[in-house]
Amino acid sequence: MKIAVLGTGSVGRILAARLAELGHDVVVGTREVAATLARTAAAGRDEPPFAAWLDANPTVALADYAGAAASAELVVNATNGAGTLAALGQAGAENLAGKVLVDVSNPLDFSAGMPPTLFVKDTDSLGEQIQRAFPDARVVKTLNTLTGALQADPAVLAGGDHTVFVSGDDAEAKQAVTSLLESLGHRDVIDLGDITTARGPEMYLPLWLRLWGALGTGQLNIKVVR
Amino acid sequence: MKIAVLGTGSVGRILAARLAELGHDVVVGTREVAATLARTAAAGRDEPPFAAWLDANPTVALADYAGAAASAELVVNATNGAGTLAALGQAGAENLAGKVLVDVSNPLDFSAGMPPTLFVKDTDSLGEQIQRAFPDARVVKTLNTLTGALQADPAVLAGGDHTVFVSGDDAEAKQAVTSLLESLGHRDVIDLGDITTARGPEMYLPLWLRLWGALGTGQLNIKVVR
Repeated sequence: MKIAVLGTGSVGRILAARLAELGHDVVVGTREVAATLARTAAAGRDEPPFAAWLDANPTVALADYAGAAASAELVVNATNGAGTLAALGQAGAENLAGKVLVDVSNPLDFSAGMPPTLFVKDTDSLGEQIQRAFPDARVVKTLNTLTGALQADPAVLAGGDHTVFVSGDDAEAKQAVTSLLESLGHRDVIDLGDITTARGPEMYLPLWLRLWGALGTGQLNIKVVR
Repeated sequence: MKIAVLGTGSVGRILAARLAELGHDVVVGTREVAATLARTAAAGRDEPPFAAWLDANPTVALADYAGAAASAELVVNATNGAGTLAALGQAGAENLAGKVLVDVSNPLDFSAGMPPTLFVKDTDSLGEQIQRAFPDARVVKTLNTLTGALQADPAVLAGGDHTVFVSGDDAEAKQAVTSLLESLGHRDVIDLGDITTARGPEMYLPLWLRLWGALGTGQLNIKVVR
């Protein structure tokens, strides 16, 4: 499948590499291709500049947000939550219309330090904001409850015996995303309901952050026991 | 141990009965003893009036909030979240001082219908509000992530192979509560940290509510896989 992964951060990179490894035709979307390739500083701990990463992942292409989305059948939003609506605006409503838009972002607000708070919650969610802003996209919220590494390859933790969620208004889109999740190794995908149910997994983040703090690792997930 | 369970609703009843069964000396606290005993209407689905419940649980005593707290070594707050601070005020700061105060309540706001929202979140929590209002109590937030039935007897779900949390500023109080939880059958108790970490388990409630909706049962919990 032709997949656009919007976002050049660690989550975008890990998902793009894994989807390419599974045989998908993957293009990463960024704001400005030239600027992204010109950066020479390391992007983060253990993260090379994007150009070096791209050299090491030669089957992945790079395009601007609009170009990446235009060519794709399915679009993954792996941009920073605070910049998501702007990034999707640059991708263009016309390039998202009718397409499955997989939203893995989180509405994290780091302005008051750590741990971050949520800039939208409880009576609304980032997933819903995206669906309202792009009514013709078929938004599915998922995977925001995991590190990028576990999103892309859940089997590295307990053989994948833990749970992820899908929320969205379009049943076919959720089914397509569930199949994609299963191809990554997710063994327990719970359909929470319409896009308003994205409030649940987004509001789980404060617990996830504190579990990371208490356990000293982000290599964790929850399994829903029932 | 002498334990006061504040609250005559389903969670209070279930915890009181189970703690009595384990051999503790349990008194349930209510606002007005006479009014509580005078109610003849069923308290809820499958719930008899409190007087009938008390007749069926003869080892449990009933007192007003202050009387119950005064006689107890450990106090459980199982009142409705919206009424918690008022109820604890009636229990009296002097009757809570120095005692472990186990808070199992949730800051649920039903004013806009179902599912409820949270009346405090993200930058504060009900656990913190209680600790600030009663600085001499040793508040431990726990069990708010479960139905009363699973709080009291976790083994009925998957033999108890799932997780609960403790948050609080007093390490000894958390250790005492962890031991009490283990005596109920809780096999995995994670210490999240100080009382501010209560924001995590309280903000998990919106996910829990949607899991209940999606799965059609409240007999569920999460296991933290790590």
